[in-house]
Amino acid sequence: MTTHDIAVIPGDGIGHEVTPAALEVLQAAGRRHGHGFTFTEYDWSCERYLREGAMMPDDGLERLRRHDAIFLGAVGAPGVPDHVSLWGLLIPIRRAFRQYVNLRPVRLFEGIDSPVRGHIDLVVVRENTEGEYSEIGGRMNRGFPDEMAVQQSVFTRAGVTRVLDYAFDLAARRGGHLTSATKSNGIIHTLPFWDELVRERAAEHPGVRCDSEHIDALCAKLVLDPGRFDVIVGSNLFGDILSDLAAAVAGSIGIAPSANLNPERDFPSMFEPVHGSAPDIHGLGVANPIGAIWSAALMLDHLGLPAAADEIVAAIAAVLAKGDIRTPDLGGTSTTTDFTEAVLTHL
Amino acid sequence: MTTHDIAVIPGDGIGHEVTPAALEVLQAAGRRHGHGFTFTEYDWSCERYLREGAMMPDDGLERLRRHDAIFLGAVGAPGVPDHVSLWGLLIPIRRAFRQYVNLRPVRLFEGIDSPVRGHIDLVVVRENTEGEYSEIGGRMNRGFPDEMAVQQSVFTRAGVTRVLDYAFDLAARRGGHLTSATKSNGIIHTLPFWDELVRERAAEHPGVRCDSEHIDALCAKLVLDPGRFDVIVGSNLFGDILSDLAAAVAGSIGIAPSANLNPERDFPSMFEPVHGSAPDIHGLGVANPIGAIWSAALMLDHLGLPAAADEIVAAIAAVLAKGDIRTPDLGGTSTTTDFTEAVLTHL
Ligand SMILES: CC(C)[C@H](C(=O)O)[C@@H](O)C(=O)O
Ligand SMILES: CC(C)[C@H](C(=O)O)[C@@H](O)C(=O)O
Repeated sequence: MTTHDIAVIPGDGIGHEVTPAALEVLQAAGRRHGHGFTFTEYDWSCERYLREGAMMPDDGLERLRRHDAIFLGAVGAPGVPDHVSLWGLLIPIRRAFRQYVNLRPVRLFEGIDSPVRGHIDLVVVRENTEGEYSEIGGRMNRGFPDEMAVQQSVFTRAGVTRVLDYAFDLAARRGGHLTSATKSNGIIHTLPFWDELVRERAAEHPGVRCDSEHIDALCAKLVLDPGRFDVIVGSNLFGDILSDLAAAVAGSIGIAPSANLNPERDFPSMFEPVHGSAPDIHGLGVANPIGAIWSAALMLDHLGLPAAADEIVAAIAAVLAKGDIRTPDLGGTSTTTDFTEAVLTHL
Repeated sequence: MTTHDIAVIPGDGIGHEVTPAALEVLQAAGRRHGHGFTFTEYDWSCERYLREGAMMPDDGLERLRRHDAIFLGAVGAPGVPDHVSLWGLLIPIRRAFRQYVNLRPVRLFEGIDSPVRGHIDLVVVRENTEGEYSEIGGRMNRGFPDEMAVQQSVFTRAGVTRVLDYAFDLAARRGGHLTSATKSNGIIHTLPFWDELVRERAAEHPGVRCDSEHIDALCAKLVLDPGRFDVIVGSNLFGDILSDLAAAVAGSIGIAPSANLNPERDFPSMFEPVHGSAPDIHGLGVANPIGAIWSAALMLDHLGLPAAADEIVAAIAAVLAKGDIRTPDLGGTSTTTDFTEAVLTHL
């Protein structure tokens, strides 16, 4: 039996409800393939921040680094500004561990009530370490009429190329179609550079049909004709917007998973549902665990168990298709546990 | 009879087809209220760029400045990079004439096949002169592995406050609900400043219910529940994305209008459909003129003729509801002229 050593950060709010659900499914799916898991839980969260003044301890990154992978529930709490909670935990992990690919699959499952018709099965590949999310910038003339804030977006050849190559390779393994999100008509320094690099990489991947869409038009097309997309690659900000939007188009953001990958495996990768900590429903036991369970499947895939990962996704699909067990966000009355049990039964 | 002096820039592609349609409707609607128009046409376009090396002449802005308003069809042509065509015409006009409000109404009309159900009647107020669309930035180490591009976003207290005040006032005149688009959890210098200014202005407009949504979640909600929105205010980039997305949610981006407003009237304002020059259908005579006609209505409103503006929008709604006359993008077989004639008849 192979054992994987997982760092678990349940975080805040419903992070505490969906994380145990996901880990239970992870264990069950792994066991069938002779893989086990040990979990080390870290209480890093807004709760900790309010108690101790920091989201994680000073040596937090060092401690995480020793694990094979990281599972994160959700972070955020009323009273803690988002930029404090996120830049004190999530974003430093993404950056320190060079998790430069944020992978966000979106599927329209049978049994989900979606605003659109047709087949949706796409993956958003989001650049995850540079771009618009930058530490560089600041504010001057605070409180005066001439106050201003500036922020630098930073796009490097190395940073863009590596995520593009990942996206091209993924597209080659899937439907052979890649769409690049741009806005080079409005953002005239960084995005024309992005476009150039897309053309450069496209020349190296002749097997992939690659097109480019401005983010405004791309969002519109995602709504009007989502079935035309296979793999979409975008900058940190555009990938963030597109993945939430695509999830909504497929009926819900409660089911969207994500993988923050360091493809070279120099550092642990991190897996987390896309949804937030949802303080409004925390404690009711009705949080939708699909995003977390599917994220656990992405973790299995990354740990070399694609078959186990597929089994989990198939079990989610089967439970949704049957339709009798759904959490309230999907129009049902089931609990987190009901859904998780149903998935375990299907496994 | 009051006469308004309008600068007309048909631009490229279907700009040449939808502009005459819009001006005809403008004339007809104005005449009923005792207002006339003189049109001065400027051939500034990509075509001109390819011929003479510039989108407009050196004294272009000076010439436009003398007019009461500007009507623009669409700009863009294959072979001319978008950042050249747009930063050589559209963007300089927006900036030189301090058209800091880009107003983009979205309605779900009866007779339009939309991906969502329910009532949609909202306005996106987009900041139009600063933010992410900035000239500041550049590239270094061109062609080398350490090549990079940077771009500065610039948010000023004055620039943000004036567009927020416009949005709050508009919300007060409409449903009393304003949603601010932010991303202060990821973009940590400029957007937290935006949020602060939103809170400041909200305190001055106690009659308006104001909430704030991160752009990713906001895009998702626009798809899942568009009826909840009234006025949405966003930065240059976010407003651009949200207005295209909202138009798609309401069934088509061919019908979306926009007004680039200088509310103080120190300079002429500019009116243009949101759609592009659509070279693929140029010359077929089937371009959807609704975006352009509705933009003409926004111009009438700005010129002090709200009643005439409402009549145009009502005529568009009536023709769409009747349903026999639609351009191909809306699933019909009618021409630009058919639709325009139908609107004129309804007037
Ligand atoms: C063409 C482009 C520069 C422009 C913009 O982003 O402002 C367009 O998308 C618009 O919305 O008017
Ligand atoms: C919370 C926020 C900083 C984060 C992001 O934008 O990266 C989230 O929206 C996500 O998509 O993981």
